[in-house]
Amino acid sequence: MTTSSPTRPRCLLPLFLGLFQGSLLLFFAFFITYDEPSAKAEDANLVANQLYGIYPLFQDIQVMVVVGLGLLLAFLPRYGFSALTHNFLLLNFSTQWALVLQGLIHHFHHGQVRLDLHNLLTAEFAAVTVLISVGTVLGRTSLCQLLVVAACEVPVYLASEWAIVTHLGVLDVGGTITIHVFSCYFGLGMSKALFGAVQRPVHPKETPTPSSDLLSLVGMLILWVFWPSFVAVLCQPGDAQHRAILNTLLAMSASAVTTVVASSLLERDGKLSLSHLQNGSLAGGVAIGAVADMAMPPVAALALGNLSAVACVLGFRFLTPLLARKLRLQDQCGIHNLHGLPGILGAAASAVAILVTSEDTSRSHISQVSPMGGNASEVVGGQWGERGAGGQALYQAAGLAVAVGGSLLAGLLAGAALRLPCLARPPEQLCFEDSLYFKIQDQAGSSAAEEGALALKERV
Amino acid sequence: MTTSSPTRPRCLLPLFLGLFQGSLLLFFAFFITYDEPSAKAEDANLVANQLYGIYPLFQDIQVMVVVGLGLLLAFLPRYGFSALTHNFLLLNFSTQWALVLQGLIHHFHHGQVRLDLHNLLTAEFAAVTVLISVGTVLGRTSLCQLLVVAACEVPVYLASEWAIVTHLGVLDVGGTITIHVFSCYFGLGMSKALFGAVQRPVHPKETPTPSSDLLSLVGMLILWVFWPSFVAVLCQPGDAQHRAILNTLLAMSASAVTTVVASSLLERDGKLSLSHLQNGSLAGGVAIGAVADMAMPPVAALALGNLSAVACVLGFRFLTPLLARKLRLQDQCGIHNLHGLPGILGAAASAVAILVTSEDTSRSHISQVSPMGGNASEVVGGQWGERGAGGQALYQAAGLAVAVGGSLLAGLLAGAALRLPCLARPPEQLCFEDSLYFKIQDQAGSSAAEEGALALKERV
Amino acid sequence: MTTSSPTRPRCLLPLFLGLFQGSLLLFFAFFITYDEPSAKAEDANLVANQLYGIYPLFQDIQVMVVVGLGLLLAFLPRYGFSALTHNFLLLNFSTQWALVLQGLIHHFHHGQVRLDLHNLLTAEFAAVTVLISVGTVLGRTSLCQLLVVAACEVPVYLASEWAIVTHLGVLDVGGTITIHVFSCYFGLGMSKALFGAVQRPVHPKETPTPSSDLLSLVGMLILWVFWPSFVAVLCQPGDAQHRAILNTLLAMSASAVTTVVASSLLERDGKLSLSHLQNGSLAGGVAIGAVADMAMPPVAALALGNLSAVACVLGFRFLTPLLARKLRLQDQCGIHNLHGLPGILGAAASAVAILVTSEDTSRSHISQVSPMGGNASEVVGGQWGERGAGGQALYQAAGLAVAVGGSLLAGLLAGAALRLPCLARPPEQLCFEDSLYFKIQDQAGSSAAEEGALALKERV
Repeated sequence: MTTSSPTRPRCLLPLFLGLFQGSLLLFFAFFITYDEPSAKAEDANLVANQLYGIYPLFQDIQVMVVVGLGLLLAFLPRYGFSALTHNFLLLNFSTQWALVLQGLIHHFHHGQVRLDLHNLLTAEFAAVTVLISVGTVLGRTSLCQLLVVAACEVPVYLASEWAIVTHLGVLDVGGTITIHVFSCYFGLGMSKALFGAVQRPVHPKETPTPSSDLLSLVGMLILWVFWPSFVAVLCQPGDAQHRAILNTLLAMSASAVTTVVASSLLERDGKLSLSHLQNGSLAGGVAIGAVADMAMPPVAALALGNLSAVACVLGFRFLTPLLARKLRLQDQCGIHNLHGLPGILGAAASAVAILVTSEDTSRSHISQVSPMGGNASEVVGGQWGERGAGGQALYQAAGLAVAVGGSLLAGLLAGAALRLPCLARPPEQLCFEDSLYFKIQDQAGSSAAEEGALALKERV
Repeated sequence: MTTSSPTRPRCLLPLFLGLFQGSLLLFFAFFITYDEPSAKAEDANLVANQLYGIYPLFQDIQVMVVVGLGLLLAFLPRYGFSALTHNFLLLNFSTQWALVLQGLIHHFHHGQVRLDLHNLLTAEFAAVTVLISVGTVLGRTSLCQLLVVAACEVPVYLASEWAIVTHLGVLDVGGTITIHVFSCYFGLGMSKALFGAVQRPVHPKETPTPSSDLLSLVGMLILWVFWPSFVAVLCQPGDAQHRAILNTLLAMSASAVTTVVASSLLERDGKLSLSHLQNGSLAGGVAIGAVADMAMPPVAALALGNLSAVACVLGFRFLTPLLARKLRLQDQCGIHNLHGLPGILGAAASAVAILVTSEDTSRSHISQVSPMGGNASEVVGGQWGERGAGGQALYQAAGLAVAVGGSLLAGLLAGAALRLPCLARPPEQLCFEDSLYFKIQDQAGSSAAEEGALALKERV
Repeated sequence: MTTSSPTRPRCLLPLFLGLFQGSLLLFFAFFITYDEPSAKAEDANLVANQLYGIYPLFQDIQVMVVVGLGLLLAFLPRYGFSALTHNFLLLNFSTQWALVLQGLIHHFHHGQVRLDLHNLLTAEFAAVTVLISVGTVLGRTSLCQLLVVAACEVPVYLASEWAIVTHLGVLDVGGTITIHVFSCYFGLGMSKALFGAVQRPVHPKETPTPSSDLLSLVGMLILWVFWPSFVAVLCQPGDAQHRAILNTLLAMSASAVTTVVASSLLERDGKLSLSHLQNGSLAGGVAIGAVADMAMPPVAALALGNLSAVACVLGFRFLTPLLARKLRLQDQCGIHNLHGLPGILGAAASAVAILVTSEDTSRSHISQVSPMGGNASEVVGGQWGERGAGGQALYQAAGLAVAVGGSLLAGLLAGAALRLPCLARPPEQLCFEDSLYFKIQDQAGSSAAEEGALALKERV
């Protein structure tokens, strides 16, 4: 009887998305082209080689975001379809929206926009921030609300990314500050503004079942495997990229082992917590992003992996309950523990690494491609010379402050927008429930159970 | 009691496959070799670079076909093992069979056949047509029948592909016409000839459960992620390949969003249909194949993605029930909506794109490697000069007609062959049922249900 | 009440892993660095190209080991979390441990150790032997015991690998002898020493359910797809690598088809056995490793794939029960059938291939990079000249003997170490049970069943 309230936003959904697709077509028709084909055979070879360099990493990132993250979010037993499809739809919508915004910005500076795989990649990074942020409100929001979040977050991300990387010259090749910290605090701000001071009891459908937890675990493993591609894709090809891959592999390996140590120390009976494993094993990858291509010794990557896993597990055990009690802060997926704490740790590590590594060694690695613009001439380099290592370290801290402050503020505003009366939230009994969006044959979640029950009924 | 009838074809199965493996060994022993190793270091480098260019894309396609398509077909709750293993066996059998046929053809022209990754890839494309076609009869056929389908379809595909690409010079780098349209109408013809005019009621085991639908959704996501590799693998390296990847990414992104719009408009209550999502999101990838490497603007890829998703969803909603009612046409997986309609749309788009893009721009992209032969000298190019754009557009239409007509006819014949008395069809109560081919511990599909029932029984 | 006994080793677990992580940090801080960045642009290009050559294959192997093998082992219905997480933890621990040991060995010869992707890869190969070996005792051992196995097996593997490849000059590019045969007999020895002469009845939780078997089947398919990367990653780039990929593809395709033939001939009613499919389809990949890059005709790869699949299926049907009855040998995952028998077949095939292929043809392929050291100067080549083909064939047999003998002995010792009183084995009722390590919400394995039961209870 209460399904009438979420029906309204569902009428909004096709309207909003349909209009958006139409505008997208118009925008592309007028502003976007491809590169002219190379005239010379050598140029064609160069294009082919560049493509072979970036495309396998791009595909790895696609698998991470579409399959890995989707499965990781599918830990709610009756929300698997929604977790996978919302993640998929948000990815596509946000990428398209980021292409439009990037294109507009570029257009006003350079005229016609030439689309290439690099643009698509940076647009996908903007979409990833949305996918992370909505983890705080997973299962309690309508699809329309999620699209509004995406519409708000993408431009703020692009602005924040420009401010941090291009304007401040912060080094963050793997997106630790610009993607992970940003999306985490955006999500927390949004959750706070949306749900206010109401403390919610545990919802009966919120507890994972073994089969949903298993899917989530597989999702984590997929993310874990492909994470080095995410960190290294925008690195300078050659040594820096090789080092970024190695550092990420080391940090994630250390995280995986440390998570088991920390979890079995903190849990009763020395058992392991699945949510610790699902998140802690990835913490090293979040933290390493800011330093992955710097000239630091391998031991630093290991140590950062260890520390970030400990921070993540401690966060789950102590900080999340504390924040929920004191600030009434709801964080459904624990993104603060996976993206916030390791992200801050990574930002701090980048400042330390800059101070410690001798200045002349680092200078050769400073030329980092900005993840936003496709043009290698927009790189950061050179400025460090004037700043000195101390100055650059301060800039890293400033970048962190911008990311946290800007995203919190924007998240609070976005969360307030989600309370607009036209965007009805799902009613409590339809939270964490696929049947809000899908026709589910068997509400019990398994035909087997039903059949077992039926068979038994006949006998009884 | 009726299990006796399907026992006979099961004796056939090892006999048939065993004889085939033996013949395969003989054929390989006499006709197939590898390339001579390169004598010079430069040649070795070239071989290595070519390998690095094609191998990651080849692997992506293997993941698509073995894991992605297998899971997509596993939506029948009690037919998961069969869906995955039949897909896997058919892929291997058909690839081997295509290697034999390709080798024979090549042998009569050039003597000894030199096997390389490119040959394997084109043989795998022949196998893909079989895997798509059998989607019409999923769950209602025996493994022997499926092998007979493969034995019939592979030579017809090779002939049709030769006629369309090599003889007519049709441009179809991603296999829209040669693979998707061909396999769709082959499958429909076969289904019609096999099942005749009998209208079947809905089988009780035909309805997906949430857990089987979830696997199928994951399969779709895997296919979605790797699809650009399928379209681009046979493109000219360099600009054309880059453009093919970008076009495919755009088309599939547009499809994913449009499917949600179309599905929520057409379904009752604005809910989403899982079968729409599982198919519509991929429709853009089917349609884009024929035009992916052409010199068209990016907006065309987006528009084609939008249109093909709409066509796919409308097909599921209106055309499939209509065909079932009027023509008694059975299409278990809805391949007409995923491969047929978007394929025709893509063929039409290729004709339009040829007419619209100016002739001199297009000429530089015409040199497309034939998916069949491994030799770059067998390319199509040059003819367009004489034909003109209008002529080439007509040839595209002719290619579509050959694909539809040839496949329908061959499919009808193959379907008639499946009615031979030695190829017994599974009895009705063993349709959509893994236990026909596998020992299933627990017929209820889940030991949990049984245990729950047992536990309860004790209490009762 | 009996959970007290496994609690003790759980206190050991964080202590052991924590100390290990600390030592790892110390070791890395003192001994391990990265390569100096290349000074010249050409060198940077070379580094980038080398990275693009190896990295996609490295990622394929990571997917195989983390996701594919993890899922393959998840066939026990209530042991899915443990199978996946133990596999994941063991991989990380063993890789780190192998890095330490490799580093120590290298340090005493060359001073500072320069870490690169190649070192990580060979360390991961050492870890793979551990993951294979523990398949004999899956579900009956504690995590602490598994870590002790890893601690014992990695150094023995490194020694055996050095003896076989570097000292004896055995050709084994895909690890057939050094990895598969070694890990199989290590595992069997360990199982024998650990469980002694006690014959165990079938445990009630040992039987797979359809849903756990389905996950395992998906795991097999993932392994099957990526296996060519595992075999070819250490090949000489160029022709040899191309040939290794092709040979592996042919062998695995033949295995897949032959497994269906053999299984349907051996099983009652002509049905297929899932464990045959899950293992037999991979047997060709195990066997082909020793000969993959040799100059043999394609038909040899097909034939080896056929034979190894037959050996694997016959092993499951006859040898495993025989060994269990006669030798009281427990082999939970049947690794003797997947790794032992096809491995021996592959070693024999390598001797035959060396004898048959003419000496001068083969000489050009002999320069195989040792999987252990990162240095291309440690290659095997040249020796064959003095040995002659007959000599080299004898050396292949000697390598097999070293692998079998050394691993059996070391495995027996490791198994004996596992019986130390401080390493308590899980009690019988907690074998094959996730709840030993994880808090499981619902012991019945599915909340749906419970809910169904509850709902029914209310009605009753």
